[in-house]
Amino acid sequence: MTWETIAAQKRKALIASIPTEWVIPSNFLPPESQLDVTGFPKQSGWFTDHELAIISTPAPELLVNIATGSWTSEEVTRAFCKAAAAAHQLTNCLSEILFEKAIARARELDKYLQTTGKTKGPFHGLPISIKDNFNIIGHDSTVGFTSLVNDPATYNSTLIDLLLAAGAVLYVKTNVPTAMMIAESVNNVFGRTVNPRNRNLTSGGSSGGESALIAFGGSRLGVGTDIGGSLRIPAACTGIFTIRPSSGRFPNFQTRSGLAGQEAVNSVNGPMASTLAEIMLWAKTVVDHQPWIHDPKCLPIPWRTVAPKRNLKIAVLWQDDEVTPTPPVARALEETVTKLRRAGHEIVNWASTGHKNLLSILSRMFVADGGKSVTKLLEQTGEPFRPEMKAYAEASELGVHEMWQLQLERNTTCKAYLDRWNKTGIDAILCPTTPYSGVENGKFAYIGYTGVFNVLDYPAVSFPCGVYADKVIDAAYADNEPLSEVDTQIRKDYDADVVHGMPVNLQLVGRRLEDESALMMTEVVLQALS
Amino acid sequence: MTWETIAAQKRKALIASIPTEWVIPSNFLPPESQLDVTGFPKQSGWFTDHELAIISTPAPELLVNIATGSWTSEEVTRAFCKAAAAAHQLTNCLSEILFEKAIARARELDKYLQTTGKTKGPFHGLPISIKDNFNIIGHDSTVGFTSLVNDPATYNSTLIDLLLAAGAVLYVKTNVPTAMMIAESVNNVFGRTVNPRNRNLTSGGSSGGESALIAFGGSRLGVGTDIGGSLRIPAACTGIFTIRPSSGRFPNFQTRSGLAGQEAVNSVNGPMASTLAEIMLWAKTVVDHQPWIHDPKCLPIPWRTVAPKRNLKIAVLWQDDEVTPTPPVARALEETVTKLRRAGHEIVNWASTGHKNLLSILSRMFVADGGKSVTKLLEQTGEPFRPEMKAYAEASELGVHEMWQLQLERNTTCKAYLDRWNKTGIDAILCPTTPYSGVENGKFAYIGYTGVFNVLDYPAVSFPCGVYADKVIDAAYADNEPLSEVDTQIRKDYDADVVHGMPVNLQLVGRRLEDESALMMTEVVLQALS
Repeated sequence: MTWETIAAQKRKALIASIPTEWVIPSNFLPPESQLDVTGFPKQSGWFTDHELAIISTPAPELLVNIATGSWTSEEVTRAFCKAAAAAHQLTNCLSEILFEKAIARARELDKYLQTTGKTKGPFHGLPISIKDNFNIIGHDSTVGFTSLVNDPATYNSTLIDLLLAAGAVLYVKTNVPTAMMIAESVNNVFGRTVNPRNRNLTSGGSSGGESALIAFGGSRLGVGTDIGGSLRIPAACTGIFTIRPSSGRFPNFQTRSGLAGQEAVNSVNGPMASTLAEIMLWAKTVVDHQPWIHDPKCLPIPWRTVAPKRNLKIAVLWQDDEVTPTPPVARALEETVTKLRRAGHEIVNWASTGHKNLLSILSRMFVADGGKSVTKLLEQTGEPFRPEMKAYAEASELGVHEMWQLQLERNTTCKAYLDRWNKTGIDAILCPTTPYSGVENGKFAYIGYTGVFNVLDYPAVSFPCGVYADKVIDAAYADNEPLSEVDTQIRKDYDADVVHGMPVNLQLVGRRLEDESALMMTEVVLQALS
Repeated sequence: MTWETIAAQKRKALIASIPTEWVIPSNFLPPESQLDVTGFPKQSGWFTDHELAIISTPAPELLVNIATGSWTSEEVTRAFCKAAAAAHQLTNCLSEILFEKAIARARELDKYLQTTGKTKGPFHGLPISIKDNFNIIGHDSTVGFTSLVNDPATYNSTLIDLLLAAGAVLYVKTNVPTAMMIAESVNNVFGRTVNPRNRNLTSGGSSGGESALIAFGGSRLGVGTDIGGSLRIPAACTGIFTIRPSSGRFPNFQTRSGLAGQEAVNSVNGPMASTLAEIMLWAKTVVDHQPWIHDPKCLPIPWRTVAPKRNLKIAVLWQDDEVTPTPPVARALEETVTKLRRAGHEIVNWASTGHKNLLSILSRMFVADGGKSVTKLLEQTGEPFRPEMKAYAEASELGVHEMWQLQLERNTTCKAYLDRWNKTGIDAILCPTTPYSGVENGKFAYIGYTGVFNVLDYPAVSFPCGVYADKVIDAAYADNEPLSEVDTQIRKDYDADVVHGMPVNLQLVGRRLEDESALMMTEVVLQALS
């Protein structure tokens, strides 16, 4: 079988796994020319009011409604299955569909609650969507490779076991780019996931199936991963929340990677959701389950309550001397800073010292094996390198001695960054998540604003700051000179008409392993913005 | 200059840095044939009663005596300088001598206390000895390479800054093997450190300068490092205490390594001392200083108080199916287990499952750069490989892709080990630290009992269990068949007459990052043995 055939069959099987009742009838289907499909659930008339009530209820309230018997897990699960099916048909955001199992499990949970009067755990009955690379017994984790189609997992990722123990219902896995190493979600198996807010734009990557699904309303709480921005970029592209946690807080063991065994910069997982409260719920619940008992890489640091700090000292990285944020982002940062000052927070400027080097280190670490890991996965089916993966196709393998020098370079850079943080006594860094409010499919060009914090291993929250791209107002924000070749390209690609109306996310960065504090500070920032 | 000349000059300068008053007069000098020199301070008549009182006082009491003004830091420092000078002359345990600076600092500290009525910190005035690889501004850290002679540090290791901030007095650096990668302390710069309990025996390595110094009485509290057993082996060879902590608890940044940039298995530092109380004092004091503020690799886990658990479930690894403990160690383990049972602890057997693989992984990680790091340090002066470093001379460099596979193999093995620990519900593993009570210089042949826990990153305490080698009693403990080639060699090298009277250390291993618990359990075990 050719790789094309494998891919075509897999896509066909995926579509076929949507029950007829949840295939959007042709008379309800929006035309391809309709770019914003986020209104579909409410406006199409295809959803009942009850289904709409369920999918628009935040996770904490859903859990209460299920635990108190107001709603069954089954009806909640069915509503999210239907919404996820719709999301997939409109944005191509799923990779595996587990509806049948999900409903069976929801019924079991309902029965358990009815019989015992008790919940199975803090996520009792809640549907949680899962990025493709998490292993769920019996299901593929292709991470976008045709060679990994029809290779169902024989064990669960540690996080999956934890979520199941906590009572969650798993109902979908979500699409990613090849090897999860592209900042958009496109691969040769499932094709491209698009942004439900504007289908000409990318939903970001690599957790872009998740972001599309959540922004559409097909999930309240999903799990993604991040090694260079893969949680924060898709959250920014779709205007939702996420935290890239410090490595070791959430269990990431026994997941599939495109660069298996690579540990110089660690992939981490984290929650994605439409509200900060849902992010906090997930984080506390997962850590309260003491994941370090089963994951040999997890740290035994309990989830710590942090009192809100009312006067933050926030360092603002306006731009990183490599890429200027596009006008909507520049404006969003400015407006946010103004409001933060007004709320009594201290604002200082933050220089990009070390950023260029951190980003260079990250790029070299990704391809240190000379792209062998990716090549081996491609060559089994003769699948070609996608153009976005050029760096992997062209890389030369390092020897371990060179790798050790690279790790030393990373350590020195991280130490200098930490010393600067200590010297200035700041609480957090505020900066763009990406240069974009939104960006057209195929044009995402720069991960520098997120990637540096992966090398540093600092917790970083990507959050919608309440500012939306506006072609009129933003026109005043594009007067300086390009900083680099990629900056020139990004300016060329920027089209105020295209991104008009897209939400802007910013990024708030805290100290390593102080994830609780990063979330608390985001809450404080949001209060200043509201 | 040839490497031999560089080494000879460095040794000469080291000896010359001992003030005349602390050069042992020839009429006090024990003959070379005198093997046990630990009695020298008390028996020689060269030390005053006051000096003897000082050097035999444990660190916690020393600190109280200094803080309350009973003793000055200067008189305490002078006593330890004199004892360390004697230790060096009898065992060759030092690499750098900082007596002058130490005394000047002690005076400053005394003045500060007298003037302000306050101490500088919890280690106010206490002399602490430091393994050679920690950088102290103005002093060499040769780690046994002639190419690193006369290359004084321009910055302090983070731990050194911490100890100074805590009020410690630094007075000596202690000898190590070449690159710290031999289990005895021998190198081409300083030669060999010997065991003060029996100078025909090794004091172990790589922290064997420390162990010799402390066992002699020239330091109450010293700092070593461990990547395969380098704290626990020297502690075992000399009958003192240490903990190999989990990685990230104690700051290890900006130290010199023989394998710089190697991170697949992390070197860690820890305290060495004659009592468990001194180990606990160091651990708590260091972590209470929040080393994670300055060390980007340190974990923000405070030192946690752990209540003693009265009924432990202890898994005993009697032998690891590769090397049989020599008779004194086999007997020590048996007698210890008997006492633990009597004290009400539950004892189960622990199989060596995974150990062989863990040890193989460790060996491959050490030489993954094809020995390039060591070769580069040697070739600058034409210094030859020592025979103990054969593996580094003969290694082939791995590519990064192979290294990633090796890291995956490590992860799988660590997960299986953790799963077994969870399944059996044990609190700790009790096992030999080394196959030896003591071993003749040049004959240390097996690090398997310690090295596996470096790969697992479990905290492991090496402690004297109160049993001493006895050529008569031990004769009953040597009746089974050799398990391997190295076992055959170790049996051949074992001589009951030679090791007669040497103390036996055992090893108690806890869960990763539960270092407090490992120390608490050692205390509980010691109570059962007393």
